[in-house]
Amino acid sequence: MELTEAIRSRRSIRKYEDRPIEQDKLLRILDAGRLAPSARNLQDRKFIVVSDQDKRRRLSEAANGQPYVEKASAVIVGCATEPENIMPCGQFCYPIDLAVALDHMSLAATAEGLGSCWIGAFQEDKVKQILDIPEKIRVVAMLILGYPAESPAARPRKKLEEITVYDKWEN
Amino acid sequence: MELTEAIRSRRSIRKYEDRPIEQDKLLRILDAGRLAPSARNLQDRKFIVVSDQDKRRRLSEAANGQPYVEKASAVIVGCATEPENIMPCGQFCYPIDLAVALDHMSLAATAEGLGSCWIGAFQEDKVKQILDIPEKIRVVAMLILGYPAESPAARPRKKLEEITVYDKWEN
Repeated sequence: MELTEAIRSRRSIRKYEDRPIEQDKLLRILDAGRLAPSARNLQDRKFIVVSDQDKRRRLSEAANGQPYVEKASAVIVGCATEPENIMPCGQFCYPIDLAVALDHMSLAATAEGLGSCWIGAFQEDKVKQILDIPEKIRVVAMLILGYPAESPAARPRKKLEEITVYDKWEN
Repeated sequence: MELTEAIRSRRSIRKYEDRPIEQDKLLRILDAGRLAPSARNLQDRKFIVVSDQDKRRRLSEAANGQPYVEKASAVIVGCATEPENIMPCGQFCYPIDLAVALDHMSLAATAEGLGSCWIGAFQEDKVKQILDIPEKIRVVAMLILGYPAESPAARPRKKLEEITVYDKWEN
C-alpha cells in the first residue's frame, strides 16, 4: 500500500472480527516497528505480543474495561527498559521512541488490511502484574490489532492553517 | 511510494543540498502530520516551519552547534500547546502525540524524495527565544528536511527476537 493511502485510511478500530492474525502479517508489522529510528539508535524497546485470550481479558480490565482490548486478536504492549534516558532538550527518550515504533506498526497494520487502535487508558501497575513486567520497566502504550468489523468515517482534523505557522510562533 | 519502502529507505540525513523544498511537497509532508492520530483526537500540536536562513543558523547554535540544522532547507519545530494533559496510564499526551505526527512527516518526506533527521539535542529555552514561543508551550523535537547530499547505509537494528516476546515479559 502507498504511504499516503496508509496515512489517509488508518482508523482507530474498536470492533474486530473473531479471526486470528496470520503470523507472516504480524511479523511484518513488528518489523516495521523494529526499523523505526530512535534517539542515538538506542532502540530501547520491547514489545509484548499478547494473543492469549485470558490475558487479553485481563488487559481489558486493566484498560478501564475497554472491551475491544479483549476482542482484538493481538495486543502489542510497548515497553521501555531504560526509561531514565533523557535528551538534551529535556524530554525523556522513551515515550517518543516507543511512539515512533508503534506509529510505524499502526501504519503497517493498515497496509496489511488490519485495524489497530492506540490504548493509553490503562493502569500501568495492573498491566505489569498481568504480564510479569519488572518494576523498572515502563509501559508506554498498547496497540491493539485485528481484522476490522467496522469502517468508521475519518475523525475530523484541524485545518493545516490552524496547526502550521512560518518562521516564528503565532497563535 | 510504498509504505514498506518508505520505512526501509528512511535514513537520518545530515548532509543536504542547497536547494529549497517545493511548496507542494512541503504541504503534503505537513498534511501527513496533520492526519496523525492523537490522544482523544485533541490534536494538540503546532508546527513552526523555519526556512529563514538566519533563524536556521540560530537554531543550529541552539542545537549544540549541529551544522545540519542550518544546512537543511527547513526545520519543523514540533510544539505542544497544552502540555499538562495526561493519559490514564500516567504518560503525558504531548511527547507521544507529537512523535506520531513527526514520524508521519518523516516517512512522507522520504516518499517525496527528501531527507530528514530528528533533532532532540537542543536547548529548549533558546529555541523558544529564537522563535518567540510563549512560556507554557513545550518544544518536543525538531525535524529537519531537505534534499539529501548523502546516501548513508542503514544503521544496525536489533533482531526481532531481541525486542519481541509473547504473552508475558522475558528478558
